[in-house]
Amino acid sequence: MRRALRLARLGTGRTGPNPMVGAVVVRDGAVVGSGFHIYSRRWHAERVALDAAGPAARDADLYVTLEPCCHHGRTPPCTDAILAAGIRRVFCGMVDPNPLVAGGGIECLRRAGIDVIVAGDPEPFRSLNRGFISRVTRGRPWVTLKAAATLDGRVAPLSGRSRWISGERSRRHAHWLRFRHDAILTGIGTVLADDPLLTCRHKRPREQPPLRLVIDPTLRLSPESRLASTAAEAPVWVYCGPAAPPAAREALAARGVTVIPVTVANDGGLDLAAALRQLADAGVSSVLVEGGSRTLAGFIRAELADEFCFYFAPMILGERSLPLAGDLGALELDGCPRLDIRRVRPLPPDWLFEGFFSFPPGGAPAALPTR
Amino acid sequence: MRRALRLARLGTGRTGPNPMVGAVVVRDGAVVGSGFHIYSRRWHAERVALDAAGPAARDADLYVTLEPCCHHGRTPPCTDAILAAGIRRVFCGMVDPNPLVAGGGIECLRRAGIDVIVAGDPEPFRSLNRGFISRVTRGRPWVTLKAAATLDGRVAPLSGRSRWISGERSRRHAHWLRFRHDAILTGIGTVLADDPLLTCRHKRPREQPPLRLVIDPTLRLSPESRLASTAAEAPVWVYCGPAAPPAAREALAARGVTVIPVTVANDGGLDLAAALRQLADAGVSSVLVEGGSRTLAGFIRAELADEFCFYFAPMILGERSLPLAGDLGALELDGCPRLDIRRVRPLPPDWLFEGFFSFPPGGAPAALPTR
Repeated sequence: MRRALRLARLGTGRTGPNPMVGAVVVRDGAVVGSGFHIYSRRWHAERVALDAAGPAARDADLYVTLEPCCHHGRTPPCTDAILAAGIRRVFCGMVDPNPLVAGGGIECLRRAGIDVIVAGDPEPFRSLNRGFISRVTRGRPWVTLKAAATLDGRVAPLSGRSRWISGERSRRHAHWLRFRHDAILTGIGTVLADDPLLTCRHKRPREQPPLRLVIDPTLRLSPESRLASTAAEAPVWVYCGPAAPPAAREALAARGVTVIPVTVANDGGLDLAAALRQLADAGVSSVLVEGGSRTLAGFIRAELADEFCFYFAPMILGERSLPLAGDLGALELDGCPRLDIRRVRPLPPDWLFEGFFSFPPGGAPAALPTR
Repeated sequence: MRRALRLARLGTGRTGPNPMVGAVVVRDGAVVGSGFHIYSRRWHAERVALDAAGPAARDADLYVTLEPCCHHGRTPPCTDAILAAGIRRVFCGMVDPNPLVAGGGIECLRRAGIDVIVAGDPEPFRSLNRGFISRVTRGRPWVTLKAAATLDGRVAPLSGRSRWISGERSRRHAHWLRFRHDAILTGIGTVLADDPLLTCRHKRPREQPPLRLVIDPTLRLSPESRLASTAAEAPVWVYCGPAAPPAAREALAARGVTVIPVTVANDGGLDLAAALRQLADAGVSSVLVEGGSRTLAGFIRAELADEFCFYFAPMILGERSLPLAGDLGALELDGCPRLDIRRVRPLPPDWLFEGFFSFPPGGAPAALPTR
């Protein structure tokens, strides 16, 4: 199963909107076939592994990181292929949370007399597909907040020039982050300050370039910006408020930018939950938020932040500079968002903190003043 | 020599205003005597080790972490004792930076025909006595800034209640920090918010309790505060500006608090350099600054910060809260103070960052606006 996990990971950045899956066929203690899923190659991991095993799959065991599917989609059900190949036992990492499967695959195999054993600890299998799981169970993508800050939690001087707080190794790692997310989101403030490209310059190729997203309530994005000028090469979607000027909308559309109006939330910002729902509907499973303090705070305040990757650089800027997280309300210690720090490691000269957000129940103040 | 270093460290918190020193006498490959310095026990490490060795010191080697003294102070010169004991060779860790010694001890031994070998790398010996070295060479104590912050660099909610951002293990470590400093300094803002005791509650006893210092320009410290009420048990010194009301001064003096007026610096705060000079003159070698953002920023701005210990807790408070470092001026990235991070380690659930400050030449803006 460890091999199946390793195989599954080879699909990173290449399976969307499908999950990453790895499969291994074992007969008499020897691997007779293995495979993993890549969207453009169409076939699911099980089918790839079974095809590789050929007749050797008869009476063999199949190890697969996710429950095999039992429905007709782009491909016929994997359960059919497993039955046809004469597999004896199936070890699977976790039940597929997709409501179209959700135990149905296991049920179907068991009914056909196949032993199906589900792993006791689903965590390693879940961590492969947090995005996919979030999309099919919560109807929104998995959201990772990324920031590079000084040790006192400052992301830029007052002048706004944040190039470069983090060192080269952190910046290389940040491209790996982009590589493993379906979309990269930033706020119009960051776009106006930095004119970023938001492309993924990781050494491995992605199946499709990540979607580039901008939160831009009044459509201030210039058609001459690097983002808009490259919209033909990699898609750019801009979320605006209901009051955005139609002329700006047309100018951006002429460049190939997709403009998506969303409603305004209680705190005066755009309704981020609505934007995320729309993204999930479009098949986007994971979003990397690279915004400034305001955008980051927006996601935290709305409790729409799942994971964080914070790079800390060996500098100190003091209070006359831009903070990592903007306005979260006047929180008390017992009401503030908690971070479950899972890993801390050096990317010299910086340090990377990674982990998950958790929000204490009733934490945020009831009414946030509008800014 | 490693053993001598280990011995020297046993003097932590117990040698002030003297340096920590360890000594080992070795004859024919065997340790025949060893010792370390503790101020109240009077004798220097060399003398303790030689006394332990007795006649076995003849023709033996002496390993000592610091150059032996050659002047009459509280004790007669150690060089005399070394000569009298018939030591053959002396290995010493580093030249004593004290202008009263500064190579004179080595010179005196060599003139008497003793081989003196000084270690190639003085760093392990320097790190023992950063405070002592700072005091005798720069005329000011070594200054360590301590803070406990959220991962976004916030030390307290707007309400000011910072109990407790850091976890129990961090707070225990902070008492070790107090243990190894001669004085603990804070600003009047922190005193008014927290009414702290600033005592050292480390399990090992200090020779004397650390001095407790408050930066209090207009003498707002209440005679009823926990600090002032306990001034008889452990000394409290308060630094005030020239305009502090004489009545407040008298009320505090009646409690046993020492009030020390200092001048005002260019940035409108008290002249911290003057306060540090006064402390060095009083024999204080190291100061732990535990202030809030304003006090910390004052030391950083004046480039009077040498070392840092920052505890980061797994929370996030956002911009409506108090920052780790207050106003350092509107710095650009290339002009901001750098941190030489030497160690990062978990104190679950927190993470401790330790290291040294460095200030880029011409970094700070020429004129800081007065607050």
